[in-house]
Amino acid sequence: MKLLCEGLDLADAVLKVVKACSTKNIMPVLECIKLSARNDMLTLSATDGEIAIIKNVKAEVHEEGEVCVQGKYFSEFVKKIEAFQILLETDGISMNIMYAENKTCMQILSADDFPVINTDINESCFSLSTNELKKYITFTTFCCATDESRPILKGCQFVIKGDEICVTSLDGFRLATISGKVAGSTGNMEIVCPARTLNEIDKMLPASDQLIDVYVQHGMMLVASEDTILTSRLYSGDFIKKENIIPRNFATTVKVSRKSLKESIERAAVFVRGEKNSLILFDINGDQVIVSTNSEVGRVNEPLRAEVNGKDLRIAMNSRFIIDAINNLDEEDVVMSFNRQIDPFICQNSVDMRSLYLILPVRTANNA
Amino acid sequence: MKLLCEGLDLADAVLKVVKACSTKNIMPVLECIKLSARNDMLTLSATDGEIAIIKNVKAEVHEEGEVCVQGKYFSEFVKKIEAFQILLETDGISMNIMYAENKTCMQILSADDFPVINTDINESCFSLSTNELKKYITFTTFCCATDESRPILKGCQFVIKGDEICVTSLDGFRLATISGKVAGSTGNMEIVCPARTLNEIDKMLPASDQLIDVYVQHGMMLVASEDTILTSRLYSGDFIKKENIIPRNFATTVKVSRKSLKESIERAAVFVRGEKNSLILFDINGDQVIVSTNSEVGRVNEPLRAEVNGKDLRIAMNSRFIIDAINNLDEEDVVMSFNRQIDPFICQNSVDMRSLYLILPVRTANNA
Repeated sequence: MKLLCEGLDLADAVLKVVKACSTKNIMPVLECIKLSARNDMLTLSATDGEIAIIKNVKAEVHEEGEVCVQGKYFSEFVKKIEAFQILLETDGISMNIMYAENKTCMQILSADDFPVINTDINESCFSLSTNELKKYITFTTFCCATDESRPILKGCQFVIKGDEICVTSLDGFRLATISGKVAGSTGNMEIVCPARTLNEIDKMLPASDQLIDVYVQHGMMLVASEDTILTSRLYSGDFIKKENIIPRNFATTVKVSRKSLKESIERAAVFVRGEKNSLILFDINGDQVIVSTNSEVGRVNEPLRAEVNGKDLRIAMNSRFIIDAINNLDEEDVVMSFNRQIDPFICQNSVDMRSLYLILPVRTANNA
Repeated sequence: MKLLCEGLDLADAVLKVVKACSTKNIMPVLECIKLSARNDMLTLSATDGEIAIIKNVKAEVHEEGEVCVQGKYFSEFVKKIEAFQILLETDGISMNIMYAENKTCMQILSADDFPVINTDINESCFSLSTNELKKYITFTTFCCATDESRPILKGCQFVIKGDEICVTSLDGFRLATISGKVAGSTGNMEIVCPARTLNEIDKMLPASDQLIDVYVQHGMMLVASEDTILTSRLYSGDFIKKENIIPRNFATTVKVSRKSLKESIERAAVFVRGEKNSLILFDINGDQVIVSTNSEVGRVNEPLRAEVNGKDLRIAMNSRFIIDAINNLDEEDVVMSFNRQIDPFICQNSVDMRSLYLILPVRTANNA
């Protein structure tokens, strides 16, 4: 392999592709970026077995060929020579990187050991605005489980039904769900995408109103944007049916200013940070919600004017969960809907109710 | 104690003073900020036994008094109510913080247990431009030792002799020294200031050409700026005499572009990051320095044009130490001066030679 390319192009591409390299020290080749030179194009690929990213860079190819190099080191090094034209040349044992008048030499691995990345994924497809997809990802991925006890919960469920799309995630303590419209689809489908894949897609796609296509086939998905292709394994198995756990009727609903609520909870959270559950209390009665904490160091007690419907209630919750939820809502007011103090409650926008967070309360000595 | 003050004033002051609070969980009162209300002034103080910071805030004092509150929680909380007027009131058991229409209550400790902070420190004094003092601190503190094996090395030595000032630090692997002029002093002196104190002084003082006074008495120092007073214990004991360890004659000197040298070393360092010593090699011969590394993953080899005087030399060094040094030099060229490959070498500006770094080379199998 021998080729000439621009440092900036190469550095930009390597930085994108290296995200798919394994960081787990299981198989050396999964920590690599594969370089393939062919037809005046350098193709960079990386995969950790779950996610794969492929990107093309314009190059003057003098000798076709392919080789694997350590992704982390290669990306750090290329970043530091991005100002130069770069000549890459392999000699069977190593790869020479020539820039300015210097020559650096990197260890290589055979490209034969690199996994085949399947990009032939196009059986089904749905399209939606890039910004909508990015919004769904931001709204849901942080509620995915992070442990391995139920792997499917490490992903977000996408359900396409007619022109409706609904994205849902949950971790056993909270659930996020958001719905909207697709611009088109090849039919109804249900897939579960790893949260990590979705976060990489979010980083890969620049904000835009343009449509993006999401392709699905054989338990794999593919998204492409500007010379970059991302594919990922999907999770298989039964996802929780949200209809079974989101209550339809509520004993108490509260409408309150999002900004005031956020500020009160953040102040209350100061004194419970670091404590298990970061416990705060809501006292709903009459026309107010009283946000309070009672830790050894300090006691906050802040009444907030609210539009309350239904029964009075005293309920304990994890301040982190509720702050995360409020941060992802964007209207002036939020609506919270409760049943008993041991039942999950809902937090959502007051007008656009196509998205919501369902949160488990904390059991305390008083209500357990 | 009962007083009214502006949230912004209080938040700003608390943020400054809390830096002196202990983070070590030894004595609860050392984790506190003491609030003293007297003569339409609220005085905040904190000390961890080594460093102390005191700051005044304008207040409408309704009832004089003093009390201690947990520094970390108080500062975090006050930051979140800085938009309001704040009423502080103690009732013997706790302190009420009233803002908007809310009341938060914090645990208090008796001010009687709070250490007396001695601010009567004025026996000797030296003055210099604030920017010069900040430059000396930045140049030297990172070379202070961080372990406890020789406590005095956790500080920087300040030597005032006539109108000369010289600041020195060392950690057993490298030494930093920088000298200049004081605007005035009460006489010659030698003190050793804790690096942590100096870093806090650096943060406390805004960049300025105005003179700042450093007061010294009984093993203590004091610096004051805009309603803030910082005092600190000095270290006692014998500091290393730099004259005894900085060589006067050299077998080899090299003058090289600072930017080119920095870039070459940073590229070389990519492949040795994480390795003990982050070892890079210098080969000095003829009119060049060859910067190289030889790790399993990659080999960098970059010749740099240089003005070499004296004998050829091959020497191994820790890339982090040399990058730290180069980052604190500011001229177009740096001069490096060597003796044998096992002797410490010097790195300094090529014109203004009043500052220098002395660095121990790394012993390798070849030169050990």
